[in-house]
Amino acid sequence: MMMGIVTLTTDFGTTDEYVGVIKGVILRIHSGVTLVDISHLVAPQAVAEGGQLLGSAFGWFPQGTVHMAVVDPGVGSERAIIAARHSGHTFIAPDNGLLPIAWAESPPDAIVHVQNSRLFLHPVSNTFHGRDIMAPVAAHLSAGMDMHELGPAVAFSQLQRIEMTSPDRVDASEIIGQIVGADHFGNLRTNIDVDLLHRLQRHHPGAAMAIMFGPYRILGLSIFYSQVEPDCWVALIGSRNQLELALNGASAAERLPEFKGMPVRVVLQSQSSMDIE
Amino acid sequence: MMMGIVTLTTDFGTTDEYVGVIKGVILRIHSGVTLVDISHLVAPQAVAEGGQLLGSAFGWFPQGTVHMAVVDPGVGSERAIIAARHSGHTFIAPDNGLLPIAWAESPPDAIVHVQNSRLFLHPVSNTFHGRDIMAPVAAHLSAGMDMHELGPAVAFSQLQRIEMTSPDRVDASEIIGQIVGADHFGNLRTNIDVDLLHRLQRHHPGAAMAIMFGPYRILGLSIFYSQVEPDCWVALIGSRNQLELALNGASAAERLPEFKGMPVRVVLQSQSSMDIE
Amino acid sequence: MMMGIVTLTTDFGTTDEYVGVIKGVILRIHSGVTLVDISHLVAPQAVAEGGQLLGSAFGWFPQGTVHMAVVDPGVGSERAIIAARHSGHTFIAPDNGLLPIAWAESPPDAIVHVQNSRLFLHPVSNTFHGRDIMAPVAAHLSAGMDMHELGPAVAFSQLQRIEMTSPDRVDASEIIGQIVGADHFGNLRTNIDVDLLHRLQRHHPGAAMAIMFGPYRILGLSIFYSQVEPDCWVALIGSRNQLELALNGASAAERLPEFKGMPVRVVLQSQSSMDIE
Repeated sequence: MMMGIVTLTTDFGTTDEYVGVIKGVILRIHSGVTLVDISHLVAPQAVAEGGQLLGSAFGWFPQGTVHMAVVDPGVGSERAIIAARHSGHTFIAPDNGLLPIAWAESPPDAIVHVQNSRLFLHPVSNTFHGRDIMAPVAAHLSAGMDMHELGPAVAFSQLQRIEMTSPDRVDASEIIGQIVGADHFGNLRTNIDVDLLHRLQRHHPGAAMAIMFGPYRILGLSIFYSQVEPDCWVALIGSRNQLELALNGASAAERLPEFKGMPVRVVLQSQSSMDIE
Repeated sequence: MMMGIVTLTTDFGTTDEYVGVIKGVILRIHSGVTLVDISHLVAPQAVAEGGQLLGSAFGWFPQGTVHMAVVDPGVGSERAIIAARHSGHTFIAPDNGLLPIAWAESPPDAIVHVQNSRLFLHPVSNTFHGRDIMAPVAAHLSAGMDMHELGPAVAFSQLQRIEMTSPDRVDASEIIGQIVGADHFGNLRTNIDVDLLHRLQRHHPGAAMAIMFGPYRILGLSIFYSQVEPDCWVALIGSRNQLELALNGASAAERLPEFKGMPVRVVLQSQSSMDIE
Repeated sequence: MMMGIVTLTTDFGTTDEYVGVIKGVILRIHSGVTLVDISHLVAPQAVAEGGQLLGSAFGWFPQGTVHMAVVDPGVGSERAIIAARHSGHTFIAPDNGLLPIAWAESPPDAIVHVQNSRLFLHPVSNTFHGRDIMAPVAAHLSAGMDMHELGPAVAFSQLQRIEMTSPDRVDASEIIGQIVGADHFGNLRTNIDVDLLHRLQRHHPGAAMAIMFGPYRILGLSIFYSQVEPDCWVALIGSRNQLELALNGASAAERLPEFKGMPVRVVLQSQSSMDIE
């Protein structure tokens, strides 16, 4: 029997039976599958957040994994469901902008509209396409079905998109981004990629980095949290390869509860200018 | 080796080690089993809620699945533990009313009292029969043990029952039910089944449905959430086949925090009477 | 293909992608593994709590299970990562005191420093050794790799330790311990082991046990929760084999919100002295 992995990323929560039901449907079709939860606590209907979360996770799974993402405010309406192949992984999700974010806009190898209704559970409900359409299709894909049996090809440019916040200002002297969220530890995530920081540093060899946000100012990037004193601010590159602002041993999100959307300014200062301050 | 699926529905939460311990015990007996969580966030000791949740989930799993449900306020007392076979599925739970609710009172094919203590972990504790009795028995059942090796048969009529709230009034002109809960999205669940609504509609062909609750009034059933404007009330049939009251893109439970037990009145109005209002 | 079980005990929460990523990494190396979550809701960076939780859980799993525990405030610093074999189980965790607590200070059969960097994911990050070091090593261990391929042996006495709260006073007439936590049901856990209670009882044959804490006084140990009236206090031995203080059918933690660290006094009283009170 074909092995296979299906991951699940949803906003279903873990209190109701929804996630279990999806797993039951998948197991009816492909009993040997390995099911892995990525998260079911995406904020309700937060499509962009779901896309970022899946984008941070999928590459760590084996090639051939099927990733099913259900953050679906338009369930039951005319929005399409798509399947796609990207860098050796297979995806299925509503066509609502989630997958282009997960792929950071790099084009997939193939995309199809999921239309082959012989694969669906009938009657197809209007409120739970995760169960009636995406789960059985994910099961068939994980068991080896060719993606092109699902429906006609569709171009990447035709997929729905949603706006992502990118840094407001990026030039040779500074980056102005913002705090976009917090993780379970209260570490604050920004929308400033490690690549941007490296580019800034190349313009100012030998200069020291200063990071300003709200009333705070951090000098220099650290390598790990406990590099600074307990309860002190530390800036480092988080596991999503973005600038992260944290307190060693404490929750930055609790210290700075108004963090959401707060501007973050990164500048490089020559040592002499720092001495003057 | 025999494959097999065991699902778990409990009020154990996910913070403590209890669920992991149950899985460890099952894996010691049946290493090839597939374990699926339905929910561990049933409200503590809410037997009826656990039954409804399992009832909404079990039918989506493959025939032969073993469903273990542990919401067990009477653990350690004289309450019995039962195993049963219903519509091709196998169940194990305390005899406290949970399973008759999960089956919507339709009779199972067989029920036994679980008494074969050679299958239990010894010493059997007084606080955790999920670990010491139900987990090993579920493991043996999933590996193919005949249910009748567990203990003597018992009649469906002899099982414990608990009261379920059913609609207060159902007649040819109206249904008066109530809001019984909310899901993770804040959509409000009622105790009004789709069958009741269909019956009401057959009495009033061509009439329009009006749903009244608290200060609100919704005209007509929708098919999906985004059929109405964002932040507007919508009534539809939820994934449990019951009337559901929701806000498109927002949490109805937050808008109406006093929802629990609130009466819901459904009437059918001829078009002319609606024009008058 | 070699089967194998890997359990996960972390403080990662279930909102972010971290747990899913660890599972993806493990599955890339050992596709046939069975993954079991023990808990991801250890309080952030609460090393001792993680150790107690794992200690309460691991023995219920099959021999040969690999237990990976990541509560890791020192990630990225010089703290070591260790693997060990104890009573037929295999462990991997940071060397920060967690494992000695999980083993209740009983010595393991073997311990090694995890240093074989050929097994790690490169580049090794400074913020997520769970993903880059522990996950691949756990996968290899579950697939049968000999522990001594990981690095040099290290003595039990050389491992890091953290202080555990043990009862403040234990003598022939009384035990004074404290409430150390609450479980999902709100039952209050103490640091008073069943062994201590038995020893106290042997000094006072025929005497009755009284348990005092805050404004409350419970006479006698019960066997199960529903042995007392609903909403009454009950003292019993919990599933971790420690004295537990609970309310039948209600949350003791909500009734006594200041429970953390509250002293608990256990005395044995002759029947006559009780009559006098």
